[in-house]
Order: sequence, then structure tokens, then C-alpha cells
Amino acid sequence: MARPEKFSAGGDPREASRQQVVSVIRAAGQIARIDIAQETGVSPATVTAITAELIRAGLIEEVSPGSAPSTPGRGRPRVSLRVRGAAHILAGIKVSSGTISTILIDFDGTTLSEHEAPLPEAQMAPEMLVRQIVDTLAAAAAETGRDIGDLSGLGVGVSGVVDVPEGLVHWSPSLTRRNVALRDMLEAALPMPVFLDNDANSVAKAEQLFGDGRGVRDFLVVTIEHGVGLGIVIDGRVYRGSRGCGAEFGHTKVHLGGALCRCGQRGCLEAYVADYALLREAAVTLPGLTGQTPEEKLDALFAAARSGDQTAQSILERASRMFAMGLANLVNIFDPGLIIVSGERMSHDFLYSDEVIAMMKTQVLQVDAPPPEVRIHKWGDMMWAKGAAAYAMEGVTELAVRGLNDA
Amino acid sequence: MARPEKFSAGGDPREASRQQVVSVIRAAGQIARIDIAQETGVSPATVTAITAELIRAGLIEEVSPGSAPSTPGRGRPRVSLRVRGAAHILAGIKVSSGTISTILIDFDGTTLSEHEAPLPEAQMAPEMLVRQIVDTLAAAAAETGRDIGDLSGLGVGVSGVVDVPEGLVHWSPSLTRRNVALRDMLEAALPMPVFLDNDANSVAKAEQLFGDGRGVRDFLVVTIEHGVGLGIVIDGRVYRGSRGCGAEFGHTKVHLGGALCRCGQRGCLEAYVADYALLREAAVTLPGLTGQTPEEKLDALFAAARSGDQTAQSILERASRMFAMGLANLVNIFDPGLIIVSGERMSHDFLYSDEVIAMMKTQVLQVDAPPPEVRIHKWGDMMWAKGAAAYAMEGVTELAVRGLNDA
Repeated sequence: MARPEKFSAGGDPREASRQQVVSVIRAAGQIARIDIAQETGVSPATVTAITAELIRAGLIEEVSPGSAPSTPGRGRPRVSLRVRGAAHILAGIKVSSGTISTILIDFDGTTLSEHEAPLPEAQMAPEMLVRQIVDTLAAAAAETGRDIGDLSGLGVGVSGVVDVPEGLVHWSPSLTRRNVALRDMLEAALPMPVFLDNDANSVAKAEQLFGDGRGVRDFLVVTIEHGVGLGIVIDGRVYRGSRGCGAEFGHTKVHLGGALCRCGQRGCLEAYVADYALLREAAVTLPGLTGQTPEEKLDALFAAARSGDQTAQSILERASRMFAMGLANLVNIFDPGLIIVSGERMSHDFLYSDEVIAMMKTQVLQVDAPPPEVRIHKWGDMMWAKGAAAYAMEGVTELAVRGLNDA
Repeated sequence: MARPEKFSAGGDPREASRQQVVSVIRAAGQIARIDIAQETGVSPATVTAITAELIRAGLIEEVSPGSAPSTPGRGRPRVSLRVRGAAHILAGIKVSSGTISTILIDFDGTTLSEHEAPLPEAQMAPEMLVRQIVDTLAAAAAETGRDIGDLSGLGVGVSGVVDVPEGLVHWSPSLTRRNVALRDMLEAALPMPVFLDNDANSVAKAEQLFGDGRGVRDFLVVTIEHGVGLGIVIDGRVYRGSRGCGAEFGHTKVHLGGALCRCGQRGCLEAYVADYALLREAAVTLPGLTGQTPEEKLDALFAAARSGDQTAQSILERASRMFAMGLANLVNIFDPGLIIVSGERMSHDFLYSDEVIAMMKTQVLQVDAPPPEVRIHKWGDMMWAKGAAAYAMEGVTELAVRGLNDA
């Protein structure tokens, strides 16, 4: 399958401008070329060239002046542009521990359907995960009276270490094997290009296109699920590192030679704040916690802390302090204007309480300028899936324009 | 003084392309437009527009085909471009503890003179620092038979927390006061635009234009002086954060509630590896260390460690371990292809020994891809000054082109 070689790396300046232009048109509904130039900082001549390409690729269209809102008394209304929503249908999938969330959106970003299905196991052989994805995609398409062949692209977000340009999963809690060429496996099983990403990057993409990241050039997204993730947006692009696997916030070290982490190293942030870390401490000190599954045991731990059990509180307090320290380190390094903390599970509230944010701020280098804004976004898996679909939307845009130029 | 509003923030995509184009021409000596497009990824049409602007601004010139090396048998030789070295003379200054280093370069990057002078005190009132800078600049210009009025711009690198777009020094070990509008003070005293930067950023700029960072899109520079600094280059630009004061690597926390730092907080990396941190430990455990000044005492500490004193070794070992952990955290977050560790003082070798780099690599998330390359660059203050001059060179380029467009 034809694949834009450098797309995932985001290296081409023209590509970045093109994505920015589409994104501004999509957000505006309809907008004149001169206003696009104004909003993006891209020169009017380049906006004209880019929009001509996008029109030829069928991705955007001119709105006849009659239908555009005109400013009274200012002569002939200007021609506006809008995204052709019907141009493409994109799918986004978020693979979680135990569930798979699928969303279909049109090229306008409008949600067509949402589909959630259980996974047989939290950790699977790659072949089984591929089968689950194909099945759930077919079911999601059928729900809207469509066929899998009607989809133009699929974005998939998985947690773990993903080499995005190579489409390779170095390691993921969802997979039984390491170094899985998941993108190629999916493309072999599906009649569409597949865009694989780390799931924290999917959230960053969702925030950038549909959330609080709109129009913000530099921001960080910290995700809290079973582990801790980080998405870095710099200069309007998701930063992915040289091996495609940066932003491993969960494995930054917060204590030299500290607690043992699932990754085999010591002192990682996750070894203090992830579910397994909390349960490890609880197992030793609170053997009486009720519950069979890890989820039930965690709930019991949170309940014990709320009802005043000091050991339970001490477990959550240490995790909070370590998390605040990790956040402060991100601020000291990036000095971002905005940090979005995205965690769905209410039970993890303790990690992004007002106290933790205040604790973080005391560990940020003090200057006479306000510290970054921190926003909490309790978005569910479906928003993560939408971010994956948005990534596919960008990929399909590149494929369409490049196909045109190669033709 | 006219100042390009957004220059320091590096926000304009056209500006980034322009700087890239000049930089490629400068590095190549002479180069054809089509090869510039090839090397930068900027479209040929944009290269043509940008080079036309640069020619009109007198910054570059066409080389007549006769003088360009032509490929035999390939028809008419192409017109090449080269930088007009005589277009501007730029000064760069690095303010250190006790000395001030000044360099003059032409627009080609060729060094015209180097000048080093002692400072009366390591920490000064801003007015005194401004006077020192003006005097040293006049002396450096006189050495080359020039006048201060012959200089087109001055770049100044100071350590501490610098808000680059505002030209404000929030805090610096060189200044007795906080929140000093140093850029404006210097511009009031000098007949040229001044470009103020954090000195670790100056080193990053020097590496990018004249060193190992040439042609590398993403890299980190870690500086070791009396403290620890960080310069971040992402996508070919020095990343400066939203308040202009990011990259505070020395104040990332490596131990929750750990050693007290000069900044007033606990557990900062500098509180373990900076000179003052080593001396604080030595003062308690090795009161017999000879030496009056901090430098002499440090030398005695290093000598004691080399001659087998276990307490002295333990002080340096802890610093090394913390430094390795801090470096590993940078790798886990940025996944850079290249880290340049820049430290002039041989005595600090222990911080960038093979053992420390190996220790760092064991704390980096393990994937089946090689860890980043780490290079050690023992550049002196003059190279830091050259980086500051390079920053002025970029600023003056922007002023020249914008002046043209505004005319």
C-alpha cells in the first residue's frame, strides 16, 4: 500500500502548512483564503497554492458567495472555503485493557458512529488483536449501513512504545509479543491505509483538532490510565522523537534505584503511580482488601483511603507526590503554556487533585510570570479513538494530495 | 530601536525557512537554488522568493557561473549563491563567573577577533554589567581597527533564567538583582540591536551553525559549568518555552524532598552536581581540604578523589549517578538522535565519563533500536560567545529582510 514516507515524522514544512490550513478551515466551518493566511501565519500565496491542491484532491470546496455570510456595505462578498465532509470516512480505534473502542467520523470531523466491544483478553497475540480490530471495524461500519470498503483510512492508538514511522509496536501491555509490525499486519488484512500511534499521541491529536489544544502552538497532554502517558505538541506538531518512541514520561526516573518497574528498571514514575504499583503496596500492607480482580482491589484501596485508613492514604499520598514531581519536571523542561491532564477514571482523581497541582507548582522554577495553566479533561476512550481517527484524517489528506502530485 | 516582534519566539514559518536557507548557503560556501531546496525541504518556489529577498537585503549574492565549480559535460553551469561576509559584523558575548568573553564575526561566520577580560566581581549590579559589556565591546572593536558603530548587532548569553522574547533576566548568578530588563538597558547604551539569550541556548546555536548540530533536526545540548544547562533544538529551532524560560534541566527534581538547591527548592539536579553542591558535602566531611577560593577547594576535592580518598570519591559518585539519571530522563522524554555534552572544565570530566554515559543508557527505556549518540564537546567560553553572535546574526537577518518589506 502506498504510504507517504515522511508523513509520520511530520518533517515536510509544506505538509505542516497543509495540515494547518485544513485544520483551520475545518474549525471555522467556512473561511476566506485571506483569513486562513491570517490565522495560520502561512503566506497568502502559499495558502492559494495549498487550497488549490486541496480543491483538486476533492478535500475542500469553494462556497458560492451567495451562501456565505457577507459583511453589509463592503461590496462583493469574498469566496469562502469549507471542508467536504463527504470526501472521506475515517475510522479510529483505541485498544484498551479489555475493551476496544471504535469511532467513525467524516472528513468534517463529525461523528458517524461509536462502537465499543469487549476484548477476550487484556493481552493478546498480535494475530488475535488484528482479528478483533477487523471484526469490530466491520461491525461499526455495518451499524451505519456501510461496508468496510467505504472507509478511507484507519487510525489505531495503542499504549506502550510505538515506533510511529515504522508502524512497529516495540512493546505494549495489549500484546503478548514484542516488536510487532502491527501496521503492516493490519494493512494486509484491511483494504485501507492504517496509521498507528501511541495512544497518548492520539489524545494530543484529539485535543489539537477538537479540544483545548485548538490554536495552541505548544502544549503537553498527560494521560492517566493504567499507566502514565505523555503527548508533546511543539509548534503545532506532535513531537515523536528520533526513534519514534519519545515522550516516555511514565519511565522517567523519580527516585534513583527506587521501586522496581514493570519495564525492569528502577525508580520509574509508573513504579509509584500505576495501578500495579498501588496494588503491590496494598498487597503487603493491606492484605484484607476485598476484591478478586485488580479493578475491585483498587476500588477497595480507594474506599479505604476515603474512609480514613492511614496506610491506604499513605499509598495514595506517595503516588501523588511522585506524580507532582514528575509534572513539575515536565514544566521545568518545556515551560508549556498549557498542560492538559486527561484521565477518564474517576478513581484516579487523587492524581490530579487541586493539592497535586499546587504541589507541582511549588516545584516549578519560580519566576515572576504565572506558571502554566493546567486543565483536567475527563475524556473517555471514545475521545482517544477520535484522536486516532484524526491522525488517519491527516494521513489520508497527505495521501490524496501526493497522489494528485504523482499522477 | 525597531525590533522584530516575534523573532525571538521563532513563530513565523517563513522566518524559519529563511534562517534555514541562509544557514545552508553559509555552510555550503556556495550552492545553487535547487540544491538549497533539496537540503532544506523548502519548496523551490519559496527558495526563489526567499533568496530574492536576501539578495535585495544585501545578505547574499549570486556567484557568476564562471567562478562556480561546474560539473563537466552537464551543460551550462548553474548560478550559485553565497553569503556576503562583509554585509555585517556581529558581536557575541558570554558572561561567565569572573570573565567576559567577546567575539566578532562577519556575516559568513568567520571570526574577526576574540577578546577576553576579567570581570571585577562574579556578581554585579546590572548597571555595572552593562558598563563592562560596553567597554569590552569597544576594546574588541578597536583591536580590529574598527569602531563600535561598525557592528550591526550584539548577542549576549548569560546563565540563569532568561525570558528571551522580553529580553528580561528573571534571575542570573551574574546579577545582584532579579527581573532585569538587560536587553533594553544594553540597547539604550549601544547603537545596535541586542539579542539576549540563555547561555545554554547560545551553545545550542553554536552547535547548530558551526558544530555537530549542523544538519541535525532534533538534538539536545547539555552544558556543564558551575551549574547544568540545557539547550533544546526541535525541528531546527531552539525551543524556548512559553514564558521564554524552559529547558531548566538543572532544576528538574531527581529526589523528592532531597538536597536543598540555591533556588530554594529541594532535590534539584544542581543540588547534587553543581560546584556549590560538591563543596557543601566536602565542607562537612573533608574539612582538611586545602584552598582558599571555591576553585582551589574543588581542585583539592578532585585530587583527593583521584588519590583514592573514599569520601571524596563518594561525593563525586553520587553526583555522577544523579547526572546519569537526569540525562536518562531527557532521553526518555525527547528520544533525541544526538545529545551533545558541552563542558569546558577538565575537572568536571567525572560527569561525562564513559561510566556515566553507560549508567545513563541502562536507565533509558530499552527498545530494539540503538540509544542516542552522546558526543562530548569541550568548547571554551569563546564558542559560547560565538553562539551568542550567531543568534545576533539571525536577528540581524530578520531585521534586514523586514526593513526591506516595510520600506
